[in-house]
Amino acid sequence: MGFNLVRNLLQQQHEVVVYDVNPEPGKKLQECGAELSASVNELVEKLETPRIVWIMVPAGPIVDQVLDTLGPLLEQGDIVIDGGNSHYKQSVARADKLKERGVHFFDVGTSGGTEGAARGGCFMIGGDQDAFGTIEPLFQDIAVDKGYLYAGGHGSGHFLKMVHNGIEYGMMQSIAEGFEILSKSQFDFNYEEVARVWANGSVIRGWLMELTQNAFSKDPKLDGIRGIMKSSGEGKWTVQTALDMEISTPVIALSLLMRYRSMEDDTFHGKVVAALRNEFGGHEVVRNS
Amino acid sequence: MGFNLVRNLLQQQHEVVVYDVNPEPGKKLQECGAELSASVNELVEKLETPRIVWIMVPAGPIVDQVLDTLGPLLEQGDIVIDGGNSHYKQSVARADKLKERGVHFFDVGTSGGTEGAARGGCFMIGGDQDAFGTIEPLFQDIAVDKGYLYAGGHGSGHFLKMVHNGIEYGMMQSIAEGFEILSKSQFDFNYEEVARVWANGSVIRGWLMELTQNAFSKDPKLDGIRGIMKSSGEGKWTVQTALDMEISTPVIALSLLMRYRSMEDDTFHGKVVAALRNEFGGHEVVRNS
Repeated sequence: MGFNLVRNLLQQQHEVVVYDVNPEPGKKLQECGAELSASVNELVEKLETPRIVWIMVPAGPIVDQVLDTLGPLLEQGDIVIDGGNSHYKQSVARADKLKERGVHFFDVGTSGGTEGAARGGCFMIGGDQDAFGTIEPLFQDIAVDKGYLYAGGHGSGHFLKMVHNGIEYGMMQSIAEGFEILSKSQFDFNYEEVARVWANGSVIRGWLMELTQNAFSKDPKLDGIRGIMKSSGEGKWTVQTALDMEISTPVIALSLLMRYRSMEDDTFHGKVVAALRNEFGGHEVVRNS
Repeated sequence: MGFNLVRNLLQQQHEVVVYDVNPEPGKKLQECGAELSASVNELVEKLETPRIVWIMVPAGPIVDQVLDTLGPLLEQGDIVIDGGNSHYKQSVARADKLKERGVHFFDVGTSGGTEGAARGGCFMIGGDQDAFGTIEPLFQDIAVDKGYLYAGGHGSGHFLKMVHNGIEYGMMQSIAEGFEILSKSQFDFNYEEVARVWANGSVIRGWLMELTQNAFSKDPKLDGIRGIMKSSGEGKWTVQTALDMEISTPVIALSLLMRYRSMEDDTFHGKVVAALRNEFGGHEVVRNS
């Protein structure tokens, strides 16, 4: 994502100084016109004030490690953007900490996949409204038309991205269940063609349906893929947030639980239900061989 | 839908003879260039053989009433299209019945809303492949680009439309739950703006998100609408079909059940759970006043 974002920025004539713990991506970006730095220190030195430092690292403790190194090097008026999928509560805490040094923090949820990062993505931006003007030109250039939003105060950008991903879980599960029904029907549907017609003119048209078409075009019945649905945390956060607020969001929650179910070949609850049916009704169980 | 489809056909230079039990739409279509007929009999007389008769009436017994009148008037090689939301099993039965007279029947699922019908929709078509060539030019003209599919034998068109609507239920519920979380969050989101940014460049972009944006543009917090989610039957059929086939489709099923829940101000299961909590733990119940 970070790699593609930098290429996007460079294509839009922005000057970019890059630092990556892995040397390879940095070298490639240097070939594309970015200025390479060998450390966070050097990166900060090479940037003119007020600096805009865009962090693109995996959510979690790595963000704090980067900020622990970066924060003390920055000066009043500098701006830090976290474009990863951090938890919104952590973003609020990080913004508060950087504010002590007069540094502005923006939590930016990024959507559109790697393709979006490269060609124009969707950005949900939380932070100080006063400082937003400084970074808005970046988003005007790297977002698709109408594809960025100053969403509100600290945390609101990552909150929106979190909920976006929760919605995504539900939409994906719904599309997938539809194809499950097709796959077990009496008809011999061509799934790629079905996804193609649903992607053109129907009520359920959209990028996910286009991606569904792409997937079936490569593997008509997805024979090469097992139905194991991994998740990277944002759906879980959405459901946790809904539970914290005691909000009924059954479809998003169930989409997450179906992903967990898919991670297991067999389930303990399945054994329990089978055993109970056997206990009360003598119903046959399937034995482990 | 039928009205808009006829206008679409007329704009594409097709000759259309119309009959409607209500005189008003027929008169308006006459002004647009359609030939008006006063009865089904007259409609059939005015069409050249092989006739193509497109029925656009509400699903259920009305389709059979129309076919009971129409069927005996048709001749070998004529074609009947049911463009409504009929149940696929009924479409199979109707096709069999018309086949006895040598009449071809096509079950056509139509998506894209009234706008799609007017400007270019999405069509899922089931029926005899041999006869499809006769009607394909119609769909080439009234569908959006890539927006029609010969899906397979009798029933497959309406089956696809049924499942399409089931998917739609899940996608809508998922989007809606996301906005539910936003509405109860600590942030003061502008829902129209959120839908706008999600509709541009994000993974969950698509027509439903654009419609969400439209809805919020008219009523920023939907204060004018109660959360009563009616349904017109295809989601129910999807779940019934999944149950018949014993397929696990929890998200589509739950989306349907949430609609039923929304039809009731209070629930009997709610009373039962509240009463039980009171029975075993002395937990307070909310009394009917």
